Amino acid sequence: MLEKLKEDVFRANLDLVRHGLVRMTFGNVSGFDRASELMVIKPSGMSYNEMTADDMVVTDKSGNVIEGTLKPSTDSPTHLALYKSFPTIGGIVHTHSTYATAWAQAGRPLPCLGTTHADYFHGSVPVTRKLTREEIENDYEYNTGLVIAGALAGRDALSIPAVLVQSHGPFTWGTSPAAAVHNAVMLEEVAHIAALSVSIAPPAEIDRHLLDRHYLRKHGLNAYYGQKD
Amino acid sequence: MLEKLKEDVFRANLDLVRHGLVRMTFGNVSGFDRASELMVIKPSGMSYNEMTADDMVVTDKSGNVIEGTLKPSTDSPTHLALYKSFPTIGGIVHTHSTYATAWAQAGRPLPCLGTTHADYFHGSVPVTRKLTREEIENDYEYNTGLVIAGALAGRDALSIPAVLVQSHGPFTWGTSPAAAVHNAVMLEEVAHIAALSVSIAPPAEIDRHLLDRHYLRKHGLNAYYGQKD
Amino acid sequence: MLEKLKEDVFRANLDLVRHGLVRMTFGNVSGFDRASELMVIKPSGMSYNEMTADDMVVTDKSGNVIEGTLKPSTDSPTHLALYKSFPTIGGIVHTHSTYATAWAQAGRPLPCLGTTHADYFHGSVPVTRKLTREEIENDYEYNTGLVIAGALAGRDALSIPAVLVQSHGPFTWGTSPAAAVHNAVMLEEVAHIAALSVSIAPPAEIDRHLLDRHYLRKHGLNAYYGQKD
Amino acid sequence: MLEKLKEDVFRANLDLVRHGLVRMTFGNVSGFDRASELMVIKPSGMSYNEMTADDMVVTDKSGNVIEGTLKPSTDSPTHLALYKSFPTIGGIVHTHSTYATAWAQAGRPLPCLGTTHADYFHGSVPVTRKLTREEIENDYEYNTGLVIAGALAGRDALSIPAVLVQSHGPFTWGTSPAAAVHNAVMLEEVAHIAALSVSIAPPAEIDRHLLDRHYLRKHGLNAYYGQKD
Repeated sequence: MLEKLKEDVFRANLDLVRHGLVRMTFGNVSGFDRASELMVIKPSGMSYNEMTADDMVVTDKSGNVIEGTLKPSTDSPTHLALYKSFPTIGGIVHTHSTYATAWAQAGRPLPCLGTTHADYFHGSVPVTRKLTREEIENDYEYNTGLVIAGALAGRDALSIPAVLVQSHGPFTWGTSPAAAVHNAVMLEEVAHIAALSVSIAPPAEIDRHLLDRHYLRKHGLNAYYGQKD
Repeated sequence: MLEKLKEDVFRANLDLVRHGLVRMTFGNVSGFDRASELMVIKPSGMSYNEMTADDMVVTDKSGNVIEGTLKPSTDSPTHLALYKSFPTIGGIVHTHSTYATAWAQAGRPLPCLGTTHADYFHGSVPVTRKLTREEIENDYEYNTGLVIAGALAGRDALSIPAVLVQSHGPFTWGTSPAAAVHNAVMLEEVAHIAALSVSIAPPAEIDRHLLDRHYLRKHGLNAYYGQKD
Repeated sequence: MLEKLKEDVFRANLDLVRHGLVRMTFGNVSGFDRASELMVIKPSGMSYNEMTADDMVVTDKSGNVIEGTLKPSTDSPTHLALYKSFPTIGGIVHTHSTYATAWAQAGRPLPCLGTTHADYFHGSVPVTRKLTREEIENDYEYNTGLVIAGALAGRDALSIPAVLVQSHGPFTWGTSPAAAVHNAVMLEEVAHIAALSVSIAPPAEIDRHLLDRHYLRKHGLNAYYGQKD
Repeated sequence: MLEKLKEDVFRANLDLVRHGLVRMTFGNVSGFDRASELMVIKPSGMSYNEMTADDMVVTDKSGNVIEGTLKPSTDSPTHLALYKSFPTIGGIVHTHSTYATAWAQAGRPLPCLGTTHADYFHGSVPVTRKLTREEIENDYEYNTGLVIAGALAGRDALSIPAVLVQSHGPFTWGTSPAAAVHNAVMLEEVAHIAALSVSIAPPAEIDRHLLDRHYLRKHGLNAYYGQKD
């Protein structure tokens, strides 16, 4: 069932390793099939070296395992909350990638300081509020999804396809698992450049019209970057 | 047509990847043939893995595609403005390389703090002024070329073969595509070292006579570095 | 004798190289067999390229060589002091890994700033007090073990399986040599992220209930991360 | 002539590349034969990829080429000045390695902040005074050697086998070309760790007795690190 999506999710998980975004068993990618409302996700705490496409776990939208012999990622309830909150997305990535996590730990939104950022994220990448003690002690992973949705409130999730969970790390998403990985790679890169810019001199955020120009030349109706499909 | 230059531009683009200066489809290299006034440039948004020399696009000096089935880089008008402004150059590189971009985002010229810098750039690498809203909304890429030319005004473009476009990233150039890549590699390295020097202690710029000595032992009439041709 | 443990210690030493935690001949891993009270440890100052499992040195708990033709690591007395002080551990790693050593040199405990840290270390990683002149001039390596034990005093050694020896570098441990290496890799990563967080903005330590949640979802009776054994 | 030394110098130059200490054609290693008073050194500005052991240039102690068809490194007069000033050394390395160069550009001696440093350098690594305009404009490379010797004045060159040339970069040395490369690798590593320590919190220099203990357990009459020869 969902063999194509399992293969996509499997490859996207391996791409996290290839791009240097994860250590040990950290990190997970999922994909969501809107027609069947089923999620495919990496199994919990499994070594990337040993994993096969068949190990991917299929759950329903409540998190019940529909197919697979392994436990799904402990972060599954977060993924499911996001698929519910953001109806246009089809893939989610969670990592503890070094630079994005450093911003999350500093408790600061990642400011848009240049066009590299503007090419992918239409404004600063928000940081979530802290979870309360109650939210942590009950349904922690699901509540993590809710505070992420809250941080994006009022925004098109695909225009800012990333968030920093405070004291934790980044989640990114996209129309597919591969798109979510692409955004995770670029988030890490712009987090790296921004940390350096801040250490050189306190930088100002990018001008609004430059932000719009770069975001819109890659995305939206009049995009002119890249080849025609 | 221009098969040799297409091969040179193709190889120079792959060298950006090999030297770690680009991620995903970022970055582009072009070459310019002064005799025919034709430019060869990387196609827009194309994966480095799939690209061949035949995919390089040939345009005239107004940007019209003369040969090739793909769209040229969206930054083509910037390249063309530079070939017009700097008559001695034959190759241009644009990247969002991490450290040079960090300085561009900080809005600071890259100061000449040591002989590594002086070996390649005869003084600090300028940062452009910001583009105005009008310049961004109309002919953005061409205007980017004009503000670069303005930042170099009064200088020999080959003596400072690099610029930082504010809130954006570096452009470098040289007598050939390969020379422009070489300068892009060294710009990134001196941007890295300078960021570290600044974090250790506020450094002074290099003494003028040491700057001259190092630049001129590698370049100019009495250069004595390297083997005789 | 202890062939399985020699193989484990040998492989764990090579893993230090593979994970980029050591340069030249720095670093060492040992394992301890509680039944026989014998330690297996890397030979002193030996190149990782030339080492074989048979080169591992077996000593008794007083440091006398029981098997092997090479001198054991100069840090052997430190390892033995730790095996005596921490009866639940079975493997120890010592490195001068870049980021953990930077914190040790700064003389600061490594604060718990996020869940990556909390997943492995149940609170901040302590820094030892400085050794006195007398402790340095007599039985230096054994005294290093004693100040480490002192820094952990009152804690379960497996709940904080790492320490920073002031002006020196990290030691990590675990139930096996492989577990100690795993903790060394994660210590270096969280030291890296924490150094970045500090440079972006002075961060607050993680909330206590989030620390507990993450530590306990991976460790302890009700852990739910990973697959069932 | 001097075939063994040429091979050693050749391999030591390639080791600079392997250890990531040089970019492009930067960097050079030499060896000195005390019996014949001849130096073997890398040719100037030559690509590491194309170089063979036969390309190494032999000069006398005044810098006259005795064997070889290529020009010796432009830094040859610096090397020769050091072989004259430091009679116990047999190999010299010059690089613009990133972290050591950052300290040289900051104009600061590299402080001894921990035992990694103390294992190799018996105290802080000095930074030279700036050269005067006259010293730069006449016999620049030879004068560079003289200010290095001045910075080490009164010290055993083998006890501090490195220096930072202000606004320039590091030179290291040892009893052989390979030993000089080993010191260049460790200088870069301790420069990296020290830059990080400084960014975390202003650190104090290592205690004198700890410095002595670590330096002397690896060097000197009673050294006990490593295997017996």
